[in-house]
Amino acid sequence: MSSAIHSLTVALAERSYPIHIGPAVLSQHDLLTSSTGGKRPLIVTNDRVGPLYLERLQNALNEPAEVLQLPDGEQHKTLQTAERIYNALLDKGFNRDCCLIALGGGVIGDITGFAAATYQRGVAFIQVPTTLLSQVDASVGGKTAVNHPLGKNMIGAFHQPQAVLIDTNTLDTLPEREYLAGLAEIIKYGLLGDADFFDWIEQNLDGLLRKDDGLVTEAIRRSCENKATIVAADETERSGQRALLNLGHTFGHAIETAQGYGKWLHGEAVGVGMCMAADLSCRIGWLNPADRDRAIALIGRAGLPTLPPAGMVADDFIRNMQLDKKVASGQLRLILMQGIGKSILTSDYAETDLVATIRDYCEQSDRA
Amino acid sequence: MSSAIHSLTVALAERSYPIHIGPAVLSQHDLLTSSTGGKRPLIVTNDRVGPLYLERLQNALNEPAEVLQLPDGEQHKTLQTAERIYNALLDKGFNRDCCLIALGGGVIGDITGFAAATYQRGVAFIQVPTTLLSQVDASVGGKTAVNHPLGKNMIGAFHQPQAVLIDTNTLDTLPEREYLAGLAEIIKYGLLGDADFFDWIEQNLDGLLRKDDGLVTEAIRRSCENKATIVAADETERSGQRALLNLGHTFGHAIETAQGYGKWLHGEAVGVGMCMAADLSCRIGWLNPADRDRAIALIGRAGLPTLPPAGMVADDFIRNMQLDKKVASGQLRLILMQGIGKSILTSDYAETDLVATIRDYCEQSDRA
Repeated sequence: MSSAIHSLTVALAERSYPIHIGPAVLSQHDLLTSSTGGKRPLIVTNDRVGPLYLERLQNALNEPAEVLQLPDGEQHKTLQTAERIYNALLDKGFNRDCCLIALGGGVIGDITGFAAATYQRGVAFIQVPTTLLSQVDASVGGKTAVNHPLGKNMIGAFHQPQAVLIDTNTLDTLPEREYLAGLAEIIKYGLLGDADFFDWIEQNLDGLLRKDDGLVTEAIRRSCENKATIVAADETERSGQRALLNLGHTFGHAIETAQGYGKWLHGEAVGVGMCMAADLSCRIGWLNPADRDRAIALIGRAGLPTLPPAGMVADDFIRNMQLDKKVASGQLRLILMQGIGKSILTSDYAETDLVATIRDYCEQSDRA
Repeated sequence: MSSAIHSLTVALAERSYPIHIGPAVLSQHDLLTSSTGGKRPLIVTNDRVGPLYLERLQNALNEPAEVLQLPDGEQHKTLQTAERIYNALLDKGFNRDCCLIALGGGVIGDITGFAAATYQRGVAFIQVPTTLLSQVDASVGGKTAVNHPLGKNMIGAFHQPQAVLIDTNTLDTLPEREYLAGLAEIIKYGLLGDADFFDWIEQNLDGLLRKDDGLVTEAIRRSCENKATIVAADETERSGQRALLNLGHTFGHAIETAQGYGKWLHGEAVGVGMCMAADLSCRIGWLNPADRDRAIALIGRAGLPTLPPAGMVADDFIRNMQLDKKVASGQLRLILMQGIGKSILTSDYAETDLVATIRDYCEQSDRA
């Protein structure tokens, strides 16, 4: 497969923007300058990604750009850190004609996007995601946010970037575990709405695990396309369509909460969550056992866990899932599969079946 | 003139919302509940307005609503105060189906609107403005913001309310000086784009100064209508049309900056600013002397200053106007009048004439 740069357009009600994907995208002067559109840039990055890729980005910009380097880590995704971005912008006299460039993973993208959404009531920004997860997830959808001590992503805004530049070369320095966690979200797009893509991942997983440039570019492109289609139909998360993106996430959040955030990667928890969603979908007769097994097998082949962490008991799930934000009017709605590539948001299942899946998975984990 | 409740609709690209104006609007159960739409309300107010009107609002809501009472004053319009609103929402378990109710003047409206714009990426809010200035200015346009130590309104978002409830009875407790400062903005709408309204204000100023309910309702209604027309044409302040709302503001900001914010009320500074804009417009031959004098006379009759504060010198204006945000590409653009009710954004004037107006006004102020 060729390793050229692929571009796709995210078409939204108000305006559209391009996503460019491929090796060395970060070094393309023309792509960068057409994305900033002549606005004064401020690069926001962190102390892990900055030392690796800042120089490439600066060279490609072909002009000395101001930089703000933040500490790495989810614990810094706060209003106080957003304030550091405002301070930098005002200290250096940036007006509304500026363009923030988020160089980093999901945390940098979320916080930079939030600052862009709220600086002088909204300025331009560009996403340069450097983790597989942020490339296939955070780069489409316009969700920006910071955390609050009482909840993740509680403070935020919808704000679309001018462009997303995905340089697949940045995956070379990504820790293997984070790369695999990103694969979980790629598999998710196949399972939730694109059976052909699921087949394609099954056939090409070995190449993806080897980080073949052409295959990785294609996997990212199709993931972004799938997400863009869903987001375009439900831009501000009001119609419920966007909820499909949460396949596996309700179970996954329960795992993350039980463990304390940060022990398992998000994608790892979602991987198990998708296995459990497949199991429940089969248990209620929606998904045939062969397809359930295909889903679980692919997640396992991708090097992801397929069972909850040791020591987690059924009550942990039950308690944490009640608290999940997907509880609407007291009734827990889940994303379940009617087939591979055919998921829906539903509360049309018996709670006994949900509990059976949970107990079964916790027991399997105990035995493992 | 009748003192019934008048309603008008602000029609925006995405959605429309109503403004209800008249005496005792605050006590109308049906208006309030149709505005909250069944969402769980949090009332945000301050320690000056709360003791006066909170009980009426609570009674009209007909259910006990949660309340957050903030300290009064522009110095509290900060990100830290917005955080107090987030804390209250999360402490009390508010989800996305909530509705913030801003009960107070412009500061409460701006900060509550900003919190609503950014809590869980945007929740509903209702404006209940209790000052004349916020009734005719802040209730239309969707601008929300907090201040930063390095600049006013530097952090914010565009976020439209579900409804605006303007109770003219709240003006009974408004200090006289603040009432007159609100009249300055009402006169502004006549001068910038509505000659008929200017005539109407001239004819009815005595009644407005007496706070005749019917006349005040009409003045607010026509001001909101004028602003709504301009905002609908330029919702996110990109086309420049919205700049017309800044008539008198560039001169006014220079006064506020020279004095330090808070000595003169914003409307007082804008009143003088409009006189100076009229003078410059006449000086360059756009506005005839009779209309210049009509403009200045009406501002004076409204009890507003028509000359800069004593001690302010020409250099204060020149220095502060250079720094004003209306400087685009190094050229100072001003809102000038081609006639009463016909203002435009322009840099088509000789700087010597601008300086002549400034010197003349500072000299007149010295002699006064």
